[in-house]
Amino acid sequence: VSSFRLALLNPNTTAGDTEAMVSLARSALPADAAVDGFTASEGHAAIESDVEHVAGAAQVVAMRRTHGDYDAYLVACFDDPGLDAAREIGTAPVVGIGHAAYLSATLIGRRFAVITTLRRGVPALQDAIRGHGLAARCAGVVALERGVREQGGEDAVGPLVDAGTRALEELGADTLVLACGAMASTSRRLSEQLAVPVCDGVGFGAGLAHTLWSNGLSTSKHGGYGWPEGHG
Amino acid sequence: VSSFRLALLNPNTTAGDTEAMVSLARSALPADAAVDGFTASEGHAAIESDVEHVAGAAQVVAMRRTHGDYDAYLVACFDDPGLDAAREIGTAPVVGIGHAAYLSATLIGRRFAVITTLRRGVPALQDAIRGHGLAARCAGVVALERGVREQGGEDAVGPLVDAGTRALEELGADTLVLACGAMASTSRRLSEQLAVPVCDGVGFGAGLAHTLWSNGLSTSKHGGYGWPEGHG
Amino acid sequence: VSSFRLALLNPNTTAGDTEAMVSLARSALPADAAVDGFTASEGHAAIESDVEHVAGAAQVVAMRRTHGDYDAYLVACFDDPGLDAAREIGTAPVVGIGHAAYLSATLIGRRFAVITTLRRGVPALQDAIRGHGLAARCAGVVALERGVREQGGEDAVGPLVDAGTRALEELGADTLVLACGAMASTSRRLSEQLAVPVCDGVGFGAGLAHTLWSNGLSTSKHGGYGWPEGHG
Amino acid sequence: VSSFRLALLNPNTTAGDTEAMVSLARSALPADAAVDGFTASEGHAAIESDVEHVAGAAQVVAMRRTHGDYDAYLVACFDDPGLDAAREIGTAPVVGIGHAAYLSATLIGRRFAVITTLRRGVPALQDAIRGHGLAARCAGVVALERGVREQGGEDAVGPLVDAGTRALEELGADTLVLACGAMASTSRRLSEQLAVPVCDGVGFGAGLAHTLWSNGLSTSKHGGYGWPEGHG
Amino acid sequence: VSSFRLALLNPNTTAGDTEAMVSLARSALPADAAVDGFTASEGHAAIESDVEHVAGAAQVVAMRRTHGDYDAYLVACFDDPGLDAAREIGTAPVVGIGHAAYLSATLIGRRFAVITTLRRGVPALQDAIRGHGLAARCAGVVALERGVREQGGEDAVGPLVDAGTRALEELGADTLVLACGAMASTSRRLSEQLAVPVCDGVGFGAGLAHTLWSNGLSTSKHGGYGWPEGHG
Amino acid sequence: VSSFRLALLNPNTTAGDTEAMVSLARSALPADAAVDGFTASEGHAAIESDVEHVAGAAQVVAMRRTHGDYDAYLVACFDDPGLDAAREIGTAPVVGIGHAAYLSATLIGRRFAVITTLRRGVPALQDAIRGHGLAARCAGVVALERGVREQGGEDAVGPLVDAGTRALEELGADTLVLACGAMASTSRRLSEQLAVPVCDGVGFGAGLAHTLWSNGLSTSKHGGYGWPEGHG
Repeated sequence: VSSFRLALLNPNTTAGDTEAMVSLARSALPADAAVDGFTASEGHAAIESDVEHVAGAAQVVAMRRTHGDYDAYLVACFDDPGLDAAREIGTAPVVGIGHAAYLSATLIGRRFAVITTLRRGVPALQDAIRGHGLAARCAGVVALERGVREQGGEDAVGPLVDAGTRALEELGADTLVLACGAMASTSRRLSEQLAVPVCDGVGFGAGLAHTLWSNGLSTSKHGGYGWPEGHG
Repeated sequence: VSSFRLALLNPNTTAGDTEAMVSLARSALPADAAVDGFTASEGHAAIESDVEHVAGAAQVVAMRRTHGDYDAYLVACFDDPGLDAAREIGTAPVVGIGHAAYLSATLIGRRFAVITTLRRGVPALQDAIRGHGLAARCAGVVALERGVREQGGEDAVGPLVDAGTRALEELGADTLVLACGAMASTSRRLSEQLAVPVCDGVGFGAGLAHTLWSNGLSTSKHGGYGWPEGHG
Repeated sequence: VSSFRLALLNPNTTAGDTEAMVSLARSALPADAAVDGFTASEGHAAIESDVEHVAGAAQVVAMRRTHGDYDAYLVACFDDPGLDAAREIGTAPVVGIGHAAYLSATLIGRRFAVITTLRRGVPALQDAIRGHGLAARCAGVVALERGVREQGGEDAVGPLVDAGTRALEELGADTLVLACGAMASTSRRLSEQLAVPVCDGVGFGAGLAHTLWSNGLSTSKHGGYGWPEGHG
Repeated sequence: VSSFRLALLNPNTTAGDTEAMVSLARSALPADAAVDGFTASEGHAAIESDVEHVAGAAQVVAMRRTHGDYDAYLVACFDDPGLDAAREIGTAPVVGIGHAAYLSATLIGRRFAVITTLRRGVPALQDAIRGHGLAARCAGVVALERGVREQGGEDAVGPLVDAGTRALEELGADTLVLACGAMASTSRRLSEQLAVPVCDGVGFGAGLAHTLWSNGLSTSKHGGYGWPEGHG
Repeated sequence: VSSFRLALLNPNTTAGDTEAMVSLARSALPADAAVDGFTASEGHAAIESDVEHVAGAAQVVAMRRTHGDYDAYLVACFDDPGLDAAREIGTAPVVGIGHAAYLSATLIGRRFAVITTLRRGVPALQDAIRGHGLAARCAGVVALERGVREQGGEDAVGPLVDAGTRALEELGADTLVLACGAMASTSRRLSEQLAVPVCDGVGFGAGLAHTLWSNGLSTSKHGGYGWPEGHG
Repeated sequence: VSSFRLALLNPNTTAGDTEAMVSLARSALPADAAVDGFTASEGHAAIESDVEHVAGAAQVVAMRRTHGDYDAYLVACFDDPGLDAAREIGTAPVVGIGHAAYLSATLIGRRFAVITTLRRGVPALQDAIRGHGLAARCAGVVALERGVREQGGEDAVGPLVDAGTRALEELGADTLVLACGAMASTSRRLSEQLAVPVCDGVGFGAGLAHTLWSNGLSTSKHGGYGWPEGHG
């Protein structure tokens, strides 16, 4: 039997992010699964504004087209840029790590809080959560006011713990969602220190993609995800 | 390394349903995963009313307590009776097949329709979909007016195809969800005939439970899923 | 003419709670009305988790079946366990004290706040309020972090006054709802001290049941509250 | 002990409507309750547009001010004109028959349909239902395209039965709400013929007002229903 | 070619408010546009309660009827009293300054906060925002606890700046909406001091009315804004 | 005084569409206003899928950056691609014709219906309407099953009239919104034939942009529309 092959599409241009996320995805999949990572060939080193989101979406579409023979795809940026468009190209399931993180949180807690980098990104996250129908499950979005490129190091842990504590004590959250792939490396420590689950979407999103594939579920071509003009 | 062990909890008293669903769950999991099925020791042969739902919920709590050492649990009735309560007992993830079916549909289509057995069950399904925040994703709920125990056989296929066709053509759905475990055996045929994905929740729910486990995600004990008085 | 006979169904096992609530219900009804109280024969002394809610729901169904000849029924626990199921069994109106308390608050104020016992119960209350469509009317839910069995005494008043003051001043509420039958004995004092209406659901719920009966309104058997299989 | 005194405020100028509704209200209250009816001194013979609603609201405020010593007030027009304003004037509870009809329907059914006179009134009714948070409970609004002054007679029954049948069969309603006081006289026949509950709000609204009064619940003066400038 | 003629209808009785708003409206329109202001002939000097709103609505209807030959109408009170009714009378577009202010805010920011006079008015504003479908865009409503007649002077600036700062820093707003015509005179200073846009609805509402007229768009007479009985 | 200069950004590559829309925009603005049209330099001849939307958004960002000195911008495609991103680049107001069309409809009717080209686009339109908070105002979305490039000609009128009639009669709409710039040329005829207002967003959107500019309202840089990294 053939085994599962996942393409991880990183909409930003930072190859190090791609590698770190491929590693996380692999560790969440069966041993015989393959994960290939692809990095945006142009665009931005991080995605923290709508301008950067638009560029990232175009890169996701381009990567999805170029690397067309995988069993499933993972859009590996918390904003899920180009997710719906990637689903139009073919039938292989496409999962976004933002959507995946939210879904995982709703399976193990009643109220999640999101920890993000910059305040300017809060409305877009709130809108996405509302778009997924999960506004009533979200206790709040907390901004660290530290950018993506300041995440991941040792001195990033303290602010995360402070933000998480506030989310649990003041907002009434029971589960945390990290809205940034670069935070994922600290998610285990955060979870241990605060004694609550911490969701980041990369590993769980890879698992979702695999589970869709295992169940023979592919993207519907009947309606809104039908082939775009000139494809298919 | 230890491998994944899943307990499938069937809230109705029909052992044949349990066996069929265990088989579906197994086929969606890695070869070394174990699935043990448990059937309600009292209650009803099928769950189609709130009275039956209440009895099924009590059975789920009892089975969750008695069989306490599994890696994850699957509540195997589309109404997800006792799902929140089962999450309070311990930290192992608990997934419901109704919730799982809805989530799978939102990953591969833009609008799902639900096909159910009796008209009397439509409001409860609509309320559950709304409770999950997915009302805007649901194109409608179609009732066959054929009970659970009339599903599964050869003559059940025609009405399902008719209902599915109506959902696609008139309601604008692109994906179908079968709101009854007993329909699951016909889901592949329905999908082939109508050329759209058909979701039933058993296999995908088992996969969700496995993915939560693979990612080290367990039920939060900090808030609304904390241990009940006298447990833990 | 026959006079109104109400059955008050207490889903917990504490007979003292039943007696206190029967007394409240009687004082809100005409002199010739009869109120009989029934206490769960098994289950939990208080209902503060979903596990306890599930057990209480099963008891409500059992009590509704056993005592089948009343004009109306009052489910006398703020979580309204088994309310929909009890409506399936027969045509006599069934009212829940949680639902009743919310409705009363919406008739005399623009924004209510709910005061409850434990923080762990806040998400379930929020979900119930949302389910009733009243999220926009609710200014917030405040938890005392004192359990049901710590309510009712003299030293319970101070924390209630503090919580109520916070709800009025910080959350913008104009009306208070007490989410616990055991708090009802202090509701009049709280109302006098804070000069706002305080709703508890027992007396008003009894009145709702009576008013439905006076108007000849009974539970619809046409749809979602139709008889369950094997009844009727 | 003093007994309950209710003022029924009819915002239209048709005294015959007032008399018919006073009679309905009385029959739903205890024998010693008094119901006095007041008819708008100027305005319109029926309220079917926003222009008429505005005039009716001003009349409700005027009548509430002039007749200030009742235990409770019933705004006796399905659009509930001036309801919030009347609550600002004093502490006596004020109930609207539209709101009352919706609440009664949610206590005895899972999905109600509203039957109204003219199509032009459908959006305003939908908006009111949404404002009360009950959009998810409403299966639809059906217009007869027969005006208020064409209701009540023998030839009004047939169209009501047709509309009700459509609401039950096509829209999935289990309970009917009549959005017009003048239809109330046929509500019992409609209920018997279709075998579902039919709610009109006059009798149940009177009962709600009485139940608020019995429970010592009065309008909150703390927030949005506080005294207007120059009153109180 | 004929030029645009706008009638500004002030529902309160303070002629000075009318003059100030006419001046604001003129400065936002082309030089050849005419703006005539009309002041309520009876009612209240300011509109801060529902009782006053009801009176203002009746005045709007009366002014709309009396002055029937304008190209468009502006209801010049933030509560938009009588807006829907005024639309029923004729086909000329009618805009409310409250609705206009909200719409302008949604075109230039992601989250607006509303600054109002009295706390008692907060629930009605929240309900109006929800009614317009903009609850998710509103970061909050802040009350100054200073009445309408205390606005406009030099000492009104400080409290507005404080409230605005709180809205930006604590509530996460990026745009401010002033819920009171009398605050409009300070809106430019507030905007400069806080470096965010400040919307008041008078000038933008006049522009909306003009733009509807320029595009040949008139009120639909087909449905809910059809002519009332006896008009048209 | 300088006069208003508007840049119309057409995200598709069809220069004829740009010209037609520039002409519509000009006719809705004062005589001294200037409208310059820009056409996407690469991408797709029409935008009917998410893949095409993503490409169009990138073109909008590029055109907004290149042509940076206008008083306001109009994103001239009904899907509003890149609208939020274009708002991040600078302070000049940016309006989308889709959003503009919806807003115009809510000012002159109570229920609008949208007429679009292909069924596959219906879910995306519904999601956009929901995102704007206008789901309750939308009576439905009707698809012609005729593509963008089949619009505009003489034989396009009949299907539009049929769809509009259905929207008015069956869905209860009172106002029509045309979800395609290429339909705009027939909007006047449609309006005359059906006697209801027909909104297309190009002229009204140009007017909105002008009105924001006249009122001195610019995009907030404080929050979610702040400058992206490396700009500003």
